[in-house]
Amino acid sequence: MTVIDFTAFIGRLATASGETILPFFRTSLGVDNKGSHDFDPVTEADRAAEAVMRRLIQANFPQHGIVGEEFGNEREDADYVWVLDPIDGTKSFISGFPTWGTLIALMHKKMPVFGMMHQPYIGERFYGDNGSANYSGSAGQRRLAVRRCASLKDATLFTTSPLLMNEADRATFSRFADVVRLTRYGGDCYSYCMLAAGHLDLVIETELKPYDIAALIPIITGAGGVVTTWEGKPAQGGGRIVAAGDPRVHEAALKLLNG
Amino acid sequence: MTVIDFTAFIGRLATASGETILPFFRTSLGVDNKGSHDFDPVTEADRAAEAVMRRLIQANFPQHGIVGEEFGNEREDADYVWVLDPIDGTKSFISGFPTWGTLIALMHKKMPVFGMMHQPYIGERFYGDNGSANYSGSAGQRRLAVRRCASLKDATLFTTSPLLMNEADRATFSRFADVVRLTRYGGDCYSYCMLAAGHLDLVIETELKPYDIAALIPIITGAGGVVTTWEGKPAQGGGRIVAAGDPRVHEAALKLLNG
Repeated sequence: MTVIDFTAFIGRLATASGETILPFFRTSLGVDNKGSHDFDPVTEADRAAEAVMRRLIQANFPQHGIVGEEFGNEREDADYVWVLDPIDGTKSFISGFPTWGTLIALMHKKMPVFGMMHQPYIGERFYGDNGSANYSGSAGQRRLAVRRCASLKDATLFTTSPLLMNEADRATFSRFADVVRLTRYGGDCYSYCMLAAGHLDLVIETELKPYDIAALIPIITGAGGVVTTWEGKPAQGGGRIVAAGDPRVHEAALKLLNG
Repeated sequence: MTVIDFTAFIGRLATASGETILPFFRTSLGVDNKGSHDFDPVTEADRAAEAVMRRLIQANFPQHGIVGEEFGNEREDADYVWVLDPIDGTKSFISGFPTWGTLIALMHKKMPVFGMMHQPYIGERFYGDNGSANYSGSAGQRRLAVRRCASLKDATLFTTSPLLMNEADRATFSRFADVVRLTRYGGDCYSYCMLAAGHLDLVIETELKPYDIAALIPIITGAGGVVTTWEGKPAQGGGRIVAAGDPRVHEAALKLLNG
């Protein structure tokens, strides 16, 4: 399968971006405001890491497309397109929390076929190809597998912050508070990786960009989980996303979201 | 100063507890429910780590008192009393997130004189003695120092979760949403350490136990910050806590909390 050929190269992208980002983490370097009405910080690190990954891709696979948060899209209709988000979780990043990650996705004909989340400060990689998913880090190398969870009442639910949702979505989301076992806030990409690793059961978010979710899909799916939009459609376009480790929880969550 | 003599010993406590806890992190070992009406998990790791720290203290300083979450209090009227919380942030722990920590405080005549937060998975230690505070970890050893922040409107505010507050406190806390620059959820002990490191400005929480806060006070104070109850009283008894890096933000927060 063609995808396997890219595994080592994605590791190189992760190493290069990690080395670029780390000197900026927990330093007092300046932060820009990208949005006007909301607080959406983006750091020099974000731009520098995307640039270094773009140069590597352009040098090795000049025919591939690239979609990035910082420098826009090129050849986005190519068969293979890289989707890059150097720092997913910029608010965690600027607050010194290590629960951000570098997201690298490889799309083939619009479908995510390989994804990696790299946390360079901790030294962790989570990666998958829809068929399987793995962790490598200080605890060695491990296969990622979701855990079983029969129903919403047994589920641990994560969302980065209900404050990121619009009013209608927040009202819908609030239906889960009294139904699930535990609701926790925070996490960004980290939540989806912990779902793939079998430590939590459900992630519900809104307003995701394609580069926020594309890399996570092959990890979640490879670990045995399910990830779609709130309408049950493919997730790679972003938007309102629901991911579950157990298909029963995913089905119940879709019902409650659309009930 | 007597306190300095204990520094190396506290490092030994952290190392021993970290080695005890890590094999339990991100494994599927069982979780008990400590509380009846709320979800308050406690792991085998918590008990094993407190036991190993107690044995070290009893062997080296048999005249000292010990206050621990898991095994109760002994000699709590001694001049020196150790206050132990092996896993602060158990909900993060069981969800696989690394934003939990081992809290070790040394009290002298009821005042916290040394405190350490140890995050063994990441390999980080934050420690202070009210006069100074330091970080050691993969980024080397660094002095911790709070950052300046002139007013609430410039402040980044953290709380572990508004869901942990009672209704009246949550209403009071909600006054901050439209005043501060950014509100973030999650963090437990990690938030206070990031405040000491100058990455965020304000932490407001409720329902803290003495062992949730005692170790953090000498770190916050040593880094130049201020931590009290919502009433402006000493924080080591726990309860409703407000910590700020800049005294101006602390004063403004007290006004808004009590206004």
